[in-house]
Amino acid sequence: MKVTDAFWRKYQELVRKVIVPYQWEVMNDRVPGVAKSHAIANLRIAAGLEEGEFYGYRFQDSDVAKWLEAVAWCLATERDPELERLADGVIEILGKAQQPDGYLNSHFTVKFPELKWKNERESHELYVAGHFMEAAVAYYRATGKRAFLDIMRRNADHIDSVFGPEEGKKHGYPGHQVTEMALAKLYEATGEERYLRLAKYFLDQRGAKPHYFELEAAERGEPGDLGPFKERMYKYNLSHAPVREQKVATGHAVRAVYMYAGMADVAALAGDPSLAEACRVLWEDVTRRQMFVTAGLGQQESWEGFSYDYDLPNAQTYNETCASIGLVFWAQRMSRLEMKGDYYDVIERALYNGILSGLSLDGTRYFYVNLLESVPRAIRERHDADYAAATRQGWFPCACCPPNIARLVASLGGYVYSADESGAAVHLYVGSETELVLGGAATRLRVEAGFPWKEEARVSVDPERPARFALSLRVPDWCRGFQAAIGGKPAEGALADGYLKIEREWRPGDVLELRLPMPVRRVRANPLVRDDAGKVALMRGPVVYCLEEADNGGLLSDIRLPRGAKLEASLEPGLLGGVVTLAGEALRSSGDWGGDLYRDEDEARPEPARKVRIKAVPYYAWDNRGENEMRVWINEE
Amino acid sequence: MKVTDAFWRKYQELVRKVIVPYQWEVMNDRVPGVAKSHAIANLRIAAGLEEGEFYGYRFQDSDVAKWLEAVAWCLATERDPELERLADGVIEILGKAQQPDGYLNSHFTVKFPELKWKNERESHELYVAGHFMEAAVAYYRATGKRAFLDIMRRNADHIDSVFGPEEGKKHGYPGHQVTEMALAKLYEATGEERYLRLAKYFLDQRGAKPHYFELEAAERGEPGDLGPFKERMYKYNLSHAPVREQKVATGHAVRAVYMYAGMADVAALAGDPSLAEACRVLWEDVTRRQMFVTAGLGQQESWEGFSYDYDLPNAQTYNETCASIGLVFWAQRMSRLEMKGDYYDVIERALYNGILSGLSLDGTRYFYVNLLESVPRAIRERHDADYAAATRQGWFPCACCPPNIARLVASLGGYVYSADESGAAVHLYVGSETELVLGGAATRLRVEAGFPWKEEARVSVDPERPARFALSLRVPDWCRGFQAAIGGKPAEGALADGYLKIEREWRPGDVLELRLPMPVRRVRANPLVRDDAGKVALMRGPVVYCLEEADNGGLLSDIRLPRGAKLEASLEPGLLGGVVTLAGEALRSSGDWGGDLYRDEDEARPEPARKVRIKAVPYYAWDNRGENEMRVWINEE
Repeated sequence: MKVTDAFWRKYQELVRKVIVPYQWEVMNDRVPGVAKSHAIANLRIAAGLEEGEFYGYRFQDSDVAKWLEAVAWCLATERDPELERLADGVIEILGKAQQPDGYLNSHFTVKFPELKWKNERESHELYVAGHFMEAAVAYYRATGKRAFLDIMRRNADHIDSVFGPEEGKKHGYPGHQVTEMALAKLYEATGEERYLRLAKYFLDQRGAKPHYFELEAAERGEPGDLGPFKERMYKYNLSHAPVREQKVATGHAVRAVYMYAGMADVAALAGDPSLAEACRVLWEDVTRRQMFVTAGLGQQESWEGFSYDYDLPNAQTYNETCASIGLVFWAQRMSRLEMKGDYYDVIERALYNGILSGLSLDGTRYFYVNLLESVPRAIRERHDADYAAATRQGWFPCACCPPNIARLVASLGGYVYSADESGAAVHLYVGSETELVLGGAATRLRVEAGFPWKEEARVSVDPERPARFALSLRVPDWCRGFQAAIGGKPAEGALADGYLKIEREWRPGDVLELRLPMPVRRVRANPLVRDDAGKVALMRGPVVYCLEEADNGGLLSDIRLPRGAKLEASLEPGLLGGVVTLAGEALRSSGDWGGDLYRDEDEARPEPARKVRIKAVPYYAWDNRGENEMRVWINEE
Repeated sequence: MKVTDAFWRKYQELVRKVIVPYQWEVMNDRVPGVAKSHAIANLRIAAGLEEGEFYGYRFQDSDVAKWLEAVAWCLATERDPELERLADGVIEILGKAQQPDGYLNSHFTVKFPELKWKNERESHELYVAGHFMEAAVAYYRATGKRAFLDIMRRNADHIDSVFGPEEGKKHGYPGHQVTEMALAKLYEATGEERYLRLAKYFLDQRGAKPHYFELEAAERGEPGDLGPFKERMYKYNLSHAPVREQKVATGHAVRAVYMYAGMADVAALAGDPSLAEACRVLWEDVTRRQMFVTAGLGQQESWEGFSYDYDLPNAQTYNETCASIGLVFWAQRMSRLEMKGDYYDVIERALYNGILSGLSLDGTRYFYVNLLESVPRAIRERHDADYAAATRQGWFPCACCPPNIARLVASLGGYVYSADESGAAVHLYVGSETELVLGGAATRLRVEAGFPWKEEARVSVDPERPARFALSLRVPDWCRGFQAAIGGKPAEGALADGYLKIEREWRPGDVLELRLPMPVRRVRANPLVRDDAGKVALMRGPVVYCLEEADNGGLLSDIRLPRGAKLEASLEPGLLGGVVTLAGEALRSSGDWGGDLYRDEDEARPEPARKVRIKAVPYYAWDNRGENEMRVWINEE
């Protein structure tokens, strides 16, 4: 699988040439002016290679894990001996940091060895292990080298010896989810059923009574009952109810979507219909009632998570980059459970909006929080906006997002195609090529597209010899008038669940010519969304647009877009790395109110509103021309 | 001075018959289910009348002080031996709690005697003293009894021996302002110039370098430099700059307006034009750029105070009842400096909106925070709204607001009239009567009005014999077509600075017939106010209206008021104690979006919007029919 796409190839090159090396320097504390990491040093200390003290969060190791996974995905596309040498060096450290029993975690090994497996509610031990497992599987698949995979198998075996239903084992589960997904991957890579069973156990056990986090607290001699905070704490980490009884997304958004992804994995791999159904219920809640138009998730800073259905405030939200990334993991697994266009519609929405917004065009600055309305002065001076940043930052004390976005972008090729016995599907129109065996014939599939700007795409289907199989093409939810032609004639196929399924005998050199019309769309939110009343968002294809001060001056609240105002799309190759912008006429207040703060109606409109030209740019590309005001939802006139 | 007004008399009776007795019970911890007070017990313990430990905030005494002041104002209108006996009893305790040197503060006397005057930044010692001084002056004026006044003179003399410019004294000032205003009152009541000099010293010294709060911290052996928090801390308590250099309101809103009131006092009493000018600059900033339409102040919860000009978010604000009360104190003093209608326009706005909203119609429940948009579910479930309450509360751990509103309402008569050598002024159309010597003649002034509902008022001017003097009638800012007639003929007068000044020979039995037209007004905010773009507030006379769920159903964000829609005012005697409501036709979304969260424009309007009747009620009277949704600023169509 190779990504050849103009848009994404650039980002993948950024990951390889800028982000991965930059993050390596950061993790080695060689970048001045950014938050201290110490992540590599922590592991070297745990490995006995260096003297010193652990520094950072309990989950500091996970930055290294995600970095290793990003490296693995880079190597999967293109081998790079230098990068591989760097990764192998880290893996060697991991091997030495691993304890004889398989335990691997620098925080507890160096700082609190006596607290090992004593406080999963807070410790992130299973979380860190999960990220290392994911990296190990990716590295094994990319390089064929087994060292890392073996380390993590030993680690998983150790965990399996500590947790489980058997007497004498801990009947617990992760305080921060990801381990479920990771064990599923490890099972797929190794065929070892115990890993899948453990993943399922973690999910089945979650929320069981007596509550594990109270049991382990009692063992530590602490009060297990957290009093009035208990309910909030359990919702925060999603242990408030058995997973199959959780009908509404709550708590920490990243924990939540990682858990849902793990549920979808186990539902598919263990064939568990009740888990699949639980996933569907939560999917509806998240994507139909708690998701921003950018696919941002987590509407409040406190607990970094969900609030409640239809509560989607644009300026006071969290929308952690990692949450949208987790949403992509989950959606991909849902698509594996049942191929419906909805899942990839959400993936596409997340990729081109709420995830890429976390990354600057030059790859060195990141948003942790992705607001849909940003007023720099409010962020600097209103204390209730302290948690957000008015501009992307070089690093974070809690640096989960930067390596997460790196590993996702590097792994993008894995999202374009899927195949099963009946045929193949093209989920994303990302320029790329792959080789699959379809209808018994080795077949090269290639997508050529100018996404997300151009309305045309070509899908080449090139079997070594004529072969009969189905090719399903995703018809995006935003697309009206999707056309697919072969040799100038409309392709015959059946449209169902968001895919056009073309079943035929494919011949060497077959090419599907696609048209995906991308008119400018004015999007409204359900009236139950209080904060979007009287506002529209602009979209074209999967791309959400925003107004930036750089193009429109400040006080964007004062811009009113008349109903039915024409908006023209035009490609600006020199702007923001080359984007399609939208432009049109809107209204702004005219006149200066002088000293008045409030006026009666007749006075307030002494002259007609001014007509102004406005320009909207893709949301993901904002904040690349200096700190400035931005808003997605535009007031309507 | 006697208030006879139908509207306010009811509230004054509430204060006398419900609020004062209720708060007495609360301060004696005899009301079940409300926050513990212990305020009387604290003082009894300090007085040696009871064993026990201090409980509560460092400023717990100030609740008793404000309660005593409320009692004093009640007695000023109507003697009440039972109430007076209660107050005398408390004053006796205060006398016994006072230390031989004049010090009076139960928190430090009982709990931390060694920390007396060691940490004014945090201690609230001067604040508590100030509230007791204000109460003592009010009690002396109401009853003629000197005991309390003498206690507080001894206390002020003690403070004067501790603070001041002389060597050996502390060159400090209050961490929480009110003392400046209180000392000015004490000076006026006693004629003792030292008290005015001390008030001026506190203001002159504020913000001087080296910073007093650093000096006292160093004396305590603590780091004086608070590092990155220093700037915020100093702005919070308004010691970041000399008061004459403070051009923009910042920090804790109550501290700020209490300080500005003290500045206006000293400007007037000490004849300090630079202080007066500083007050004017701050007045412009507060009332023209940082004041809600309800006269609410303090746009953020963190630091309970101001944010920045034109930042006026309706759902995420603080608007402490005490801040609007302090605004009234300040405005009255500004009016004394220079009689401009603006000051009483703001007083009226605060009284009928942002202050009364703090009090339930039955007098037993209070808002500390006064939102202009309240969604109960957001307050309960969004953690960033934890600080607000979805409905009024019976008491608060920090209970500054309930006794503050009691003392203000009880003292309302003091705001209606003023007089100087040239004549008298009527500032508020509050039914009341007073006797003044005007033009050498004992003159009875009487206002009869049905404010804020009725458009007519009568002002009787009844000198014992014909006398020449000026009577100035305030022409409210909201009033178009103000008319004043004597004997059926337009009164001749000069309109300047918001007052109609009628200078003539007044005869016994003269009556001015006034018309103050009160059309329904649609008010807009300056376009620089981001959160009010595309919205209108409804007002009639000085009263701000709101939509409540009780009348309009939930999801008030979905109600859109078409431009130019007619709104009718009608008196509903049976509703909310008798109010004028506004009603008219508006639009609501029609149709059910089913599972859709976002829709393209064409789909979003499958049918025309529904026409609905809406009803608006006075903002101050909201939340008297059970917890429900409310909003002041209504979306426009």
